[in-house]
Amino acid sequence: PKFGKGLLNIVGQDSTWSMNFSARVQLLSGSTWFIEDDNFEYDRTNTLIRRSRLKFKGHLFNPKVTYKMEFGLSNRDMGGASAFTNNAPRFIMDAVLKWNFYENFELWAGQTKLPGNIERVISSGDLQLVDRSVVNSRFNIDRDMGVQLRHHITLGNSFLIREKIALSQGEGRNVTTGNLGGHQYTGRLEVLPFGKFANKGDYRGAALDRQETPKLMVAATYDMNKDAVRTRSNMGSYMETDYGFHQTDINTFFADMMFKYKGFSFMGEYAKRTADDPVATNLDGTATGDVVWVGDGLNLMSGYLFKNNYEVTGRYSNVTLDESITGIGEENQYTLGLSKYFVGHKLKLQTDVTLLDFDASPDRLQWRLQLDFHF
Amino acid sequence: PKFGKGLLNIVGQDSTWSMNFSARVQLLSGSTWFIEDDNFEYDRTNTLIRRSRLKFKGHLFNPKVTYKMEFGLSNRDMGGASAFTNNAPRFIMDAVLKWNFYENFELWAGQTKLPGNIERVISSGDLQLVDRSVVNSRFNIDRDMGVQLRHHITLGNSFLIREKIALSQGEGRNVTTGNLGGHQYTGRLEVLPFGKFANKGDYRGAALDRQETPKLMVAATYDMNKDAVRTRSNMGSYMETDYGFHQTDINTFFADMMFKYKGFSFMGEYAKRTADDPVATNLDGTATGDVVWVGDGLNLMSGYLFKNNYEVTGRYSNVTLDESITGIGEENQYTLGLSKYFVGHKLKLQTDVTLLDFDASPDRLQWRLQLDFHF
Amino acid sequence: PKFGKGLLNIVGQDSTWSMNFSARVQLLSGSTWFIEDDNFEYDRTNTLIRRSRLKFKGHLFNPKVTYKMEFGLSNRDMGGASAFTNNAPRFIMDAVLKWNFYENFELWAGQTKLPGNIERVISSGDLQLVDRSVVNSRFNIDRDMGVQLRHHITLGNSFLIREKIALSQGEGRNVTTGNLGGHQYTGRLEVLPFGKFANKGDYRGAALDRQETPKLMVAATYDMNKDAVRTRSNMGSYMETDYGFHQTDINTFFADMMFKYKGFSFMGEYAKRTADDPVATNLDGTATGDVVWVGDGLNLMSGYLFKNNYEVTGRYSNVTLDESITGIGEENQYTLGLSKYFVGHKLKLQTDVTLLDFDASPDRLQWRLQLDFHF
Repeated sequence: PKFGKGLLNIVGQDSTWSMNFSARVQLLSGSTWFIEDDNFEYDRTNTLIRRSRLKFKGHLFNPKVTYKMEFGLSNRDMGGASAFTNNAPRFIMDAVLKWNFYENFELWAGQTKLPGNIERVISSGDLQLVDRSVVNSRFNIDRDMGVQLRHHITLGNSFLIREKIALSQGEGRNVTTGNLGGHQYTGRLEVLPFGKFANKGDYRGAALDRQETPKLMVAATYDMNKDAVRTRSNMGSYMETDYGFHQTDINTFFADMMFKYKGFSFMGEYAKRTADDPVATNLDGTATGDVVWVGDGLNLMSGYLFKNNYEVTGRYSNVTLDESITGIGEENQYTLGLSKYFVGHKLKLQTDVTLLDFDASPDRLQWRLQLDFHF
Repeated sequence: PKFGKGLLNIVGQDSTWSMNFSARVQLLSGSTWFIEDDNFEYDRTNTLIRRSRLKFKGHLFNPKVTYKMEFGLSNRDMGGASAFTNNAPRFIMDAVLKWNFYENFELWAGQTKLPGNIERVISSGDLQLVDRSVVNSRFNIDRDMGVQLRHHITLGNSFLIREKIALSQGEGRNVTTGNLGGHQYTGRLEVLPFGKFANKGDYRGAALDRQETPKLMVAATYDMNKDAVRTRSNMGSYMETDYGFHQTDINTFFADMMFKYKGFSFMGEYAKRTADDPVATNLDGTATGDVVWVGDGLNLMSGYLFKNNYEVTGRYSNVTLDESITGIGEENQYTLGLSKYFVGHKLKLQTDVTLLDFDASPDRLQWRLQLDFHF
Repeated sequence: PKFGKGLLNIVGQDSTWSMNFSARVQLLSGSTWFIEDDNFEYDRTNTLIRRSRLKFKGHLFNPKVTYKMEFGLSNRDMGGASAFTNNAPRFIMDAVLKWNFYENFELWAGQTKLPGNIERVISSGDLQLVDRSVVNSRFNIDRDMGVQLRHHITLGNSFLIREKIALSQGEGRNVTTGNLGGHQYTGRLEVLPFGKFANKGDYRGAALDRQETPKLMVAATYDMNKDAVRTRSNMGSYMETDYGFHQTDINTFFADMMFKYKGFSFMGEYAKRTADDPVATNLDGTATGDVVWVGDGLNLMSGYLFKNNYEVTGRYSNVTLDESITGIGEENQYTLGLSKYFVGHKLKLQTDVTLLDFDASPDRLQWRLQLDFHF
């Protein structure tokens, strides 16, 4: 294959299976400064292998049965070992089988991303800035084990509707100790009034696909994690109490959109999380200190890609956690990024500067530089 | 290669080496209920990536020198990190070199399965039910580092005898802290009076190989772990005391058999473990709480494979630990399983129901569903 | 490819990239005895998978942009998980991009070995004895994240000079928590008066490359880790105090040489480490117990490779830590090794015997046997 199209592209005898194997690495260096009274005070620098992934995908047995396996090899990828993950690193990102069993219907089984907010579902290798926003890190619903049913329908010439529903264990990825509390239910509806984006541009950052006509996706996700035991639904700390786990229904709602036309792109997201009983308490009613991260957030990002494959991108992100519950106030982030795509997302150099404006602590300035190479 | 025969099948220049690379994933969901006074009370569900493996095998330098490397990537595979494993996950399953140095003699060096009970040595990808029995989990002798000498001889037309002896470190797999106590010695004798099973059917679950004439293997293993320091020989907890490790000779004995004819299969195993001094004590003679799991077990399994590759399997397992030492009474398990082999063991869906009958605690009912795909 | 030349050798469409994939395993067994009053008392044996590696290298986008990725899979390779590595195993050894941007200049970015002492930079798969010396384990500067600039120039016909400078984070490999204290600066100068070694023999142990004319490399490295917080520069324990980390400038100096002619090889190394303030203290001035390993060492090794590819090697290693600071006295090691190279370093059996002569504790005798196979 060509560079960026995977390292191996194998088709088995009699076409009984196929496999595309690819790898990628992200090298990141980031520095921060505190801003106090218009003075900049150097805080720290972190240089690391941000991500290192191996990816296998293809079909097996039958062209209608496809699979995806992705493994994370960097220390950032694999962290989160705990008694809930057999005290082992979380090496497996995705391990999912997809079966197109009837017309436009597809059944998925295994561990993969839930149909959550668009920023999360876009691969970390296809981002428009160095990393996802703070709105995503507070509210996203990540990966889980379970089944998904996906369907799409085209009305008229091009008006496209996609429906995605998921039933999951609700504990997050790579958990070996099984279900605690209840399960997790997710539904997502996507409307693309002007038809499909060329080159899967709706789920890829930056306007590298240079849509020839305006393309729009408007979507909403509703997710309910019944009797959840973690502070961010299927992620975050486990809410342990003196009688076991605090359990509460956690609801997460996303509305998001993607618009692209030629070199221009715009992505917007609104997120909101609520919980029936967000404060974990012991038997005597005292708070344990763990609370569900309830609140809402807004994320707006827009970029313009020049003919020479340089891109300028701006992003505004706001997160407002419920201060009376979480004790954390409002947070605003303003980011300006510059990317050079040597070979699309497969070989790129990205840099950005972010002003982090916190209610309760000094502001900070962050500068990041990232090199990506994907085979 | 065809589906199920590996992803890559490479032969080096001048045939100086070869490699077959394959991968497999098992997705498992299991639920249990307590049974009290004929009422079923839901206990819990566990959905997980049960196994995820990469396997490399082939020859190197010379066709008589072969190797096998297998890596476990799921959190269930990799668990067991401790100071004895350099606080790192136990990623490597097998890393073994095999040298056919003379006629029917083969010398193995490295880490791999010991020649223990048949149920253990059958690959977890070739099982007839969703998982191995409780007899295996209590008594098997798993993998270890060391050398093995293997030989086979045919008497008359087809009467086949195989001898396998192993000298091992005796501490289990992926240990970096070396030998504690003494070494482990294993011998196994296998008698196949009607000759070799077609398609290696003696070491594969289910009658997918449909033997045309009746085939039988009867075998016995004797294993002695000299001055062992773990509660299940080379597995289980380390028996730490206030003066160091409790050391005792642990003996494990297996007698097992496999019979297959057309769609019918039967596997039987008897296991027995003894120890010279099964109770770990401190200097002052008080028990530390760690004891060797001494006792015996019986495992009987039979299945019939229909022409459409559906199989019905029944299993009875009994484990009787020595209650005066272990404090654990008798355990009986009755399992009924149904499997559909789409492409043999390479793409299959298996389900089973087990009644778990404990002496000392309420009975439980377990239902499991597993999807396997192997390239 | 042929045996030992990698498992896969792929060139992408239009030669836009290439990849060579290789794997290797080292199986090691070592035993030690205490020597007291001319009696040998058996101490212990350790049999393990010493190393297990996967390696990817090639070019991407452009023949002048090359990469190397190496992963360590054995428990010995992956150890060192801590809060500083996201509590995950240290799976990635190398992940580095190299860009030959102008004539003889090359820029490296990512994680890889620093240009330290020659014994360290020689791959663990290309060693002349079973393992590196005690001088290396006390003083080497290992791997780090950062950038390196490399240049070489030939004067006259063959007089070759190489310059290597590195700017690194200074915390060691696979760290996710970023920079503590200052950065690390390394410079190395190599002089090869008789020109390049054939077959990269300067960075490969043993005289398997059988240089037809005498070849010599003389080199020196100076490394400064500004405000370092670990006891061995970018390795060793973190020097935590009651007010944070103890920070001190740590300097490491190496002078080393390699000489080869036909079957003969000689390698010599001198190492010296100093620190501005080697003793970590709490606010009240009491020592925390952590000290920088200051001192010096000498390592001399010579071998002769016979026509039948058997090699005899001798090594003398001396480490003299500053006893007043470290409390550790002088250590001498005398090693005699025998190697059989079946297919160069790619399939070899090595054994050695070492006398370990400590100032402060009883002497020990160590015997090791190692089997290497590399594809």
